Amino acid sequence: MNTRFLKACNNEKVDTIPVWFMRQAGRYLPQYRKIREKHSIVEIIKNPEICSYISILPVKELNVDACILFSDLTTPLIFMDVEFDIVENEGPILLKTIENYKDILNLKDFDERKIYFVGETISILKQISNVPIIGFIGGQFTFVSYLVEGRSTRNFIKTKFLMLNETKIWNYLMEKITENLFMFAKYQIENGVDALQIFDSWIYVLGSYEFEMYVLPYLENLISKLKLFKVPIIYFSLGDLAIKFIDRINADVFSIDWRVDISQLFKINKK
Amino acid sequence: MNTRFLKACNNEKVDTIPVWFMRQAGRYLPQYRKIREKHSIVEIIKNPEICSYISILPVKELNVDACILFSDLTTPLIFMDVEFDIVENEGPILLKTIENYKDILNLKDFDERKIYFVGETISILKQISNVPIIGFIGGQFTFVSYLVEGRSTRNFIKTKFLMLNETKIWNYLMEKITENLFMFAKYQIENGVDALQIFDSWIYVLGSYEFEMYVLPYLENLISKLKLFKVPIIYFSLGDLAIKFIDRINADVFSIDWRVDISQLFKINKK
Repeated sequence: MNTRFLKACNNEKVDTIPVWFMRQAGRYLPQYRKIREKHSIVEIIKNPEICSYISILPVKELNVDACILFSDLTTPLIFMDVEFDIVENEGPILLKTIENYKDILNLKDFDERKIYFVGETISILKQISNVPIIGFIGGQFTFVSYLVEGRSTRNFIKTKFLMLNETKIWNYLMEKITENLFMFAKYQIENGVDALQIFDSWIYVLGSYEFEMYVLPYLENLISKLKLFKVPIIYFSLGDLAIKFIDRINADVFSIDWRVDISQLFKINKK
Repeated sequence: MNTRFLKACNNEKVDTIPVWFMRQAGRYLPQYRKIREKHSIVEIIKNPEICSYISILPVKELNVDACILFSDLTTPLIFMDVEFDIVENEGPILLKTIENYKDILNLKDFDERKIYFVGETISILKQISNVPIIGFIGGQFTFVSYLVEGRSTRNFIKTKFLMLNETKIWNYLMEKITENLFMFAKYQIENGVDALQIFDSWIYVLGSYEFEMYVLPYLENLISKLKLFKVPIIYFSLGDLAIKFIDRINADVFSIDWRVDISQLFKINKK
C-alpha cells in the first residue's frame, strides 16, 4: 500500500509530496460523464459497485496518492428522511426546509441500515485500492445551511437569521446535526476509511465572532470525538477563517484554498 | 448642509458617527416597491425624476447622513451599448459575453450624451438634498466579471480563465474598462457628487497573488486619477483582501464587511 498520504497527514517524512485533488472522481472523467447520463448522483451513491468504480477511477487514471469516497454533502439526508432533488447546474434542493423545533424533531437519527451502501462501497474500495481511502462528511455549518436554506445560496440569509435570532433553535439543530454527522463519520471509519475529510466550504460567509460563538464549539466537539479513532481528520473550508482559529480547530490537516498564503501558514506551523 | 459624513471621510472631528447604509434606497421602502411594480431598475435609472425621488427617500425617511445615487453596477453597459436584462432574483444577464479582442473593440467608449440622465439626477439631488451625494461606480474586477460571465456567478471560472490564460486580452479589457469607469466617475463628480464609492464586491474570490498581479495595478491607476478631483473616494469590497493591500489602495475610506475585525483595522490605522 502507498502510505505517502497518511505519512504526510501524520507529519512524518515522505519521499515526495502526496497528491490527490478535490472532485478527482468527477466530471473531467469521460467514464464518469457516461455513467451520469444514466444515473443520478444519489443513485450512484446508493450503488456500491458503481460508487466504488467511480471512486477508484482517478487512482487508476492519474495514480494519485489517495482515494476519496464518492459522496455528497447531502448523503446524510438519506438516513434523515429529508426529501431532496439534485438539480443540474443548481445542486440539491430540499422539498421542505428546517425552520422550527418540530422540523428538527422530524429529522431521523443515524441508522446504518438506511445507509448500508456506504459501508459496502468502502468494503469494496478496501479490497481494490492500493492507496488510503478518505471518508467524507459535511461540516455542521455547511450541512445545516442546506437544511435551512433548502438550496445553495450566496447570502445565507435564512441561516444567519436562525443563528442570530432563534439561537435556541440553532443550538438544538447544531447539536442534533453534530451527533448525526459524528455517527456517520464513525460508521465510515469503522468500515475502514483511513482518513476523514470534513467539508465545511461555507463558513467563510461568517465573521469571526459568529463563527466562534455559533459554530466553533460544535466543530471542536465533533473533531475531538472523531480523533479518538486515530485516523487523520482533515478540515476543509473556503477562505481564511479556519486559519484564524487554527489553535482551536483540532484537525490533523487543514485543507485550504487560494485565499490563504501558504508561506504564512508555515510561519504559524513553526510556532 | 449636514457635513458630518464628509468630515468623517476627511478624518476630521465629528459630533457623532455619520450613518448611511448600502441599499438604503431599496426594497425595504414601500414607496420603492410600488415604483418597481411599474418600472424596471434601468427605467428608474434613466428617469431623473423617479431616480432622484428614490435616492432621496431614505434621507427623508431615516434622516441618514448621506444620499447615495440610485444606480447599479451595470449602468455603464448603457453607454457601452451592451445589451442586458435584469431578471428578478437573478440580477443582470448579458445577451452576449466578452470573450475576445473583437468583443472588446465593440464596447463603446464613454459618451455623456448616452448617460445624460445620470447627470440630471445628480443636479436634482443637489437641489433637494441637505446631505452629501455619493456617486457610484463598480470596481474594475467586479464590472469586468459581469462582462465576461454574463451573469452573477459563484465561481468566476470564465473570468479567472481569461485572467490567467488570456492575460493579454485581460489586460486590454481592464485598461479599457478602467478608462471608461474613470470617465463615468469623473462625469458624476463634475456634475456635483460630493464623494464617490467604488463597489468592488467580488474581489474576495481572488487570492492575494492574482489580485496583486491582475487587478491592483488598474485599481491604483483608477483611484490615483480620481483623487485629483478632491472628493473622498470610498472603496467597498467583500472579505479582507483590500485590507491586506491597504497601503497600496489609495482610497480615502474603506468600506468593509463583517469578515474584517474593526479592532484590527484601528491598529493598522495607528501605524
